[in-house]
Amino acid sequence: MRTRIAIPLLLAIWNLQGQALTGFTPTAAEKERQLEARFDSQLSADNLDAWMQRMTAQPHWVGTDYGAENARWMQQQFQSWGYEARIDTYQVLFPYPRVRLLEMTGPEPFTASLKAIPVDGDPYTQQGDALLPSYNAFSTDGDVEAELVFVNYGVPADYEELEKLGIDVKGKIVIAKYAGSWRGIKPKLAAEKGAIGCIIYSDPKDDGYFQGDVYPKGAYKNATGVQRGSVMDMPLYPGDVLTPGYAATENAQRLNREEAPTITQIPVLPISYADAEPLLKALEGPVAPPAWRGALPITYHIGPGPARVHLKLEFDWQLRPAHNVIATLKGSMFSDQWVVRGNHHDAWVHGASDPVSGMVALMEEARVVGELARAGNRPKRTVIYCAWDAEEPGLIGSTEWVEDHKKELQEKTVAYVNTDGNGRGFFGAGGSHTLQTLVGEAAADVTDPQTGVSVKERRMAREAVDGEAGEFSISALGSGSDYTPFIQHAGIASLNIGFGGENGGGEYHTIYDTYTHFKRFKDPDMAYGVALAKVAGRIVLRLANAEVLPLTFGPWEQTVSGYLKEVMNTAETMRNEVEAHNALVAKNAYGLAADPKEPVAKPGEKTPVPYLDFSPLQNALASLGNQVKQLEAKDPQQLPADKKARLNRLLMQTEHQLTDEAGLPRRPWYKHQIYAPGFYTGYGVKTLPGVREAIEQRNWPEAQTEIGRLAATLDAMTAHLSTINQLFQ
Amino acid sequence: MRTRIAIPLLLAIWNLQGQALTGFTPTAAEKERQLEARFDSQLSADNLDAWMQRMTAQPHWVGTDYGAENARWMQQQFQSWGYEARIDTYQVLFPYPRVRLLEMTGPEPFTASLKAIPVDGDPYTQQGDALLPSYNAFSTDGDVEAELVFVNYGVPADYEELEKLGIDVKGKIVIAKYAGSWRGIKPKLAAEKGAIGCIIYSDPKDDGYFQGDVYPKGAYKNATGVQRGSVMDMPLYPGDVLTPGYAATENAQRLNREEAPTITQIPVLPISYADAEPLLKALEGPVAPPAWRGALPITYHIGPGPARVHLKLEFDWQLRPAHNVIATLKGSMFSDQWVVRGNHHDAWVHGASDPVSGMVALMEEARVVGELARAGNRPKRTVIYCAWDAEEPGLIGSTEWVEDHKKELQEKTVAYVNTDGNGRGFFGAGGSHTLQTLVGEAAADVTDPQTGVSVKERRMAREAVDGEAGEFSISALGSGSDYTPFIQHAGIASLNIGFGGENGGGEYHTIYDTYTHFKRFKDPDMAYGVALAKVAGRIVLRLANAEVLPLTFGPWEQTVSGYLKEVMNTAETMRNEVEAHNALVAKNAYGLAADPKEPVAKPGEKTPVPYLDFSPLQNALASLGNQVKQLEAKDPQQLPADKKARLNRLLMQTEHQLTDEAGLPRRPWYKHQIYAPGFYTGYGVKTLPGVREAIEQRNWPEAQTEIGRLAATLDAMTAHLSTINQLFQ
Repeated sequence: MRTRIAIPLLLAIWNLQGQALTGFTPTAAEKERQLEARFDSQLSADNLDAWMQRMTAQPHWVGTDYGAENARWMQQQFQSWGYEARIDTYQVLFPYPRVRLLEMTGPEPFTASLKAIPVDGDPYTQQGDALLPSYNAFSTDGDVEAELVFVNYGVPADYEELEKLGIDVKGKIVIAKYAGSWRGIKPKLAAEKGAIGCIIYSDPKDDGYFQGDVYPKGAYKNATGVQRGSVMDMPLYPGDVLTPGYAATENAQRLNREEAPTITQIPVLPISYADAEPLLKALEGPVAPPAWRGALPITYHIGPGPARVHLKLEFDWQLRPAHNVIATLKGSMFSDQWVVRGNHHDAWVHGASDPVSGMVALMEEARVVGELARAGNRPKRTVIYCAWDAEEPGLIGSTEWVEDHKKELQEKTVAYVNTDGNGRGFFGAGGSHTLQTLVGEAAADVTDPQTGVSVKERRMAREAVDGEAGEFSISALGSGSDYTPFIQHAGIASLNIGFGGENGGGEYHTIYDTYTHFKRFKDPDMAYGVALAKVAGRIVLRLANAEVLPLTFGPWEQTVSGYLKEVMNTAETMRNEVEAHNALVAKNAYGLAADPKEPVAKPGEKTPVPYLDFSPLQNALASLGNQVKQLEAKDPQQLPADKKARLNRLLMQTEHQLTDEAGLPRRPWYKHQIYAPGFYTGYGVKTLPGVREAIEQRNWPEAQTEIGRLAATLDAMTAHLSTINQLFQ
Repeated sequence: MRTRIAIPLLLAIWNLQGQALTGFTPTAAEKERQLEARFDSQLSADNLDAWMQRMTAQPHWVGTDYGAENARWMQQQFQSWGYEARIDTYQVLFPYPRVRLLEMTGPEPFTASLKAIPVDGDPYTQQGDALLPSYNAFSTDGDVEAELVFVNYGVPADYEELEKLGIDVKGKIVIAKYAGSWRGIKPKLAAEKGAIGCIIYSDPKDDGYFQGDVYPKGAYKNATGVQRGSVMDMPLYPGDVLTPGYAATENAQRLNREEAPTITQIPVLPISYADAEPLLKALEGPVAPPAWRGALPITYHIGPGPARVHLKLEFDWQLRPAHNVIATLKGSMFSDQWVVRGNHHDAWVHGASDPVSGMVALMEEARVVGELARAGNRPKRTVIYCAWDAEEPGLIGSTEWVEDHKKELQEKTVAYVNTDGNGRGFFGAGGSHTLQTLVGEAAADVTDPQTGVSVKERRMAREAVDGEAGEFSISALGSGSDYTPFIQHAGIASLNIGFGGENGGGEYHTIYDTYTHFKRFKDPDMAYGVALAKVAGRIVLRLANAEVLPLTFGPWEQTVSGYLKEVMNTAETMRNEVEAHNALVAKNAYGLAADPKEPVAKPGEKTPVPYLDFSPLQNALASLGNQVKQLEAKDPQQLPADKKARLNRLLMQTEHQLTDEAGLPRRPWYKHQIYAPGFYTGYGVKTLPGVREAIEQRNWPEAQTEIGRLAATLDAMTAHLSTINQLFQ
């Protein structure tokens, strides 16, 4: 593999000679690129392969012996590469399933098997009781029986549709498909709507034979596979449910479990499509709308009933140790400026893809950074590699660590760079848009293992074919991996990067996410693991070695302006929709268009959408734009050393300007005013979240308040940029 | 039922008093509406019910004894109502299946059952051998064996996709889903692409459990149901395959069957989804694109193979008699001005919905028109009611009759009004846009049986809720029922009307289209059959009694202008697409975006789309617009009687101005230059077909020629309107 990519890589280096590198003088850039070429040449796909086999030999969720052993082993590895490595352990609440019962009590009896079959040719799936039973962590205990209602994905739009059909889930148990939102939204909304239990299943349309051949013939989910996963209310706060906003140290004061607001209100259980089919088949009532129907060979009805189900869940609620491995390589020049790089190491079962594929790429990256340091190329800034535990149940390991070290991290961290599961395909990145230029430059310098062009060029080709616009950009971060405490709670510039898109499968959080599956379907020769190490390694090394920190503000300001346009358009679109809707109500068009044999609730008038005063934001962005323009005209490399040092300190603090200590409405843990996971989407990002979510929730007074607050936040950024600009006077 | 609708109806009449009626003076309009109120009051849903039971007691496809008996019985009925009724019989080629064999010869053996199951509670489905075996009429005989390829719907876009995937159907047997186009397009295209056989099946996604509960629990297609249907190349010419353009009289000179161009080139057989599933499941090769996948519980692969199938078909090719019933009620004043009204009477099996639901509505309408005539209200113009035979195999009865009487029909016919299967739901209409005003006025005067508003208002409410624009309009006619020979061959203004949208089901052309099914799911109390009689009866009576024929040109001209814009936009869109495509090819974006593990044919450059000269059409429409504007300013009721008579004669000839005796390129039978069924869509209409299809086929010289020809056609219309305008000088 290394031979195969050697030639295009060398060509790429020649081509890049003399190309600018943000934050470096031309001379320094050339030296940096020579270093990176040495970095590349020492990466070994064989290491990734061997380490993955080792780490995924046994299941290793938080609290397991094998997880602790992995942590110790990683610590030793980091130490052997020249790092100071320690294990930071927190005591976190983690429920383990004790009773899992799902049965249909009528019209016909049926008991769900709740068990994925072991498959021929994959010994990992044959480890029997060693495999973690399928469940949703942070479901409450419960014992409920009621009629069943099918609620599609169980997202807000689905309940609007149910309301139109005159169907109420109060006192019922809902069954929702996985997908369409982060899973934790489904029981949260169901409980808000009065349901007493929630079942989540993987429909073969989204995650099964409709997508491709199922395991073991192909990569996709077979009829028995079940996606585990946390349903903790992470959009409220992630991390240990008993210690919101502070670290779950041994002696920390803890909430009582009963008062922990991020545990679900109702019991919730994930099941396979084999277990779901009899339940769904037994439903009557209206036929589900076309968009709701999956790929099971049945007519999808909504119910309620006549299917009745009995759901009984009990968990062993215990504090368990979460072991974060923290490996530090002190910087040669600026040891109090930290580049933090992380990936989690805990898995639901074996987790070959999620998270070990990313973890082993991080380790190989760390190994070579260590080797280069030993050989005299120690990074100028301190580099800290982190292997997080307890990410799967709710970003717990990283969150507790960030909460524990928040002040120091805010003061010293240049940026946090996250990875997670990785596979064959296209480069993708999300994060702080001040880092967009850095990401684009790194991606332009790494060769795609399959095509010989840069991973940036290949991704741009994909976007061009998909009809997307022409400039390289990174997406905004919502949630779903360990960057969340860094960016959204601590206000540290962060990135999340990886490869994928040609690694489709149904193994996510199942017993099928094994080394065997990974080697057949995800990244057989670990080429994209190595590519990830190259991109992430470049980002880390450039952040660590740059004379001026490589943050840029032009793309950032364009992106935020784009978000404001979106938000304003959302309000406008809602206004037009309400007007159109009310016009139809006024002439009874809904009543006349409806089928009288299928009575539906008659939609009423909606409250008109008022005009909001967006001018504070428009003015704030105008001022901000001026400062950005001034800054972009400057050459920071011309600054004297002392001013450069001052500049770097200021640059390290820019992301923090975008936070508000008060946090977002009703969720103070989330401080960032530009990016947040959606309160009703979970992982999905909401940009300008205070304003956007108030509008989406039709809370107009709050929307106006949040416009003012966001404008103040942007003004703080303007003042900060003004301070930076003054350095040049 | 009659009681239930009596009250809103009377109210409606009061409301309408004094409202204008196009073609009538205010006094005449009031009298006409009084007549229509009497007409309404005599309609009996019980007659529709009894007649449907009678006509659908046995299968009655063309050539059956029961079909002939139905024709004789209808003739007697018409006679008993005061009509001169005759049976016009033609000798038409109609193949009956003799051998039907479909088996998979590898990798595992499987023989298709080709048999729909009889169901409990529906005695009609239990008639055993009396039911017509499932087949596609006008498939050629054949005995072929080859690897199978799944081609989605088998339409042009699907073959483009196959080409991208590097898959060739040459020498293979294709399996295509029903839907997405008229069925005859599938074997036609497959043969053009080199396939040697074609299987068509109903996927449960489009027509089965995905849509709703299956028969007998619900209305939708069960696993064994098979849609019969003609695959004759009707877009070339419909009607008897051996007598193109002239009548299939006893002694007509006939083509040899071998030279009949509308019989398929390759054998084709329709099957159920129960029979299709093992074949599709046995395919390997690329996974089908998401949009291709149906609702069977399998991963849809394209092939080719390893599934091999053997398809053997033999037909009994015989001339059989097609009996059209023609019932005439001579007009009291203008007996040489004919209003022709038709519905077919032949069915694939029992045909309760298709066509008998429309046929019995027509009969009840005719009965009451006859009764009113007896009571002294004979229509001023001659009314001719037609019950066509052999519609199902290819509009044969109506086509032969129109070809037989073409000259007289062109001279004497005011308009042709068609109906076919009818059911509960919304009013729909298509046809000559000169009749749009007439249709809208009739629909405004008929009360919807379920909601109490007019059928026009209910339909407008449906469109408003669906986000469609505000004005009442009728659609353009493609093909699919007996209006085709009238409008597209003879150039006679035509309409096709009916109700539906709340009568979903999977019975179409299966053994399940029975009286039992109809009464449960389609129009249980025949209320929409009566509503159809009311709308069609009004249209017929108004056409028959109007002082000035109720044709208007404003909506017509707007519609044609809209078509021109569409066609120009099509060329522009194609040009932009080609430019974008070629830009992507130039930078190898397709190559880079593709998954190297799934090799696809590398798309090449496309020939740029030239700019066409649309000015002849623009100028023609401008002149036409002037004449229309002049005409709309006139009040034809002010004309003296002789000029009115002359005006009516000219109005009767307007539709014919839109034809060109040379016909469309490569299909001279189709004379109309504004509306035609698509050469590659079948039933789907192509407006301005000469120009539009040349552009779609990228035949630029032909597009330019057709622009000129269409402009000349429009100029003829302009001249005709100018002649009409001169009457007012």
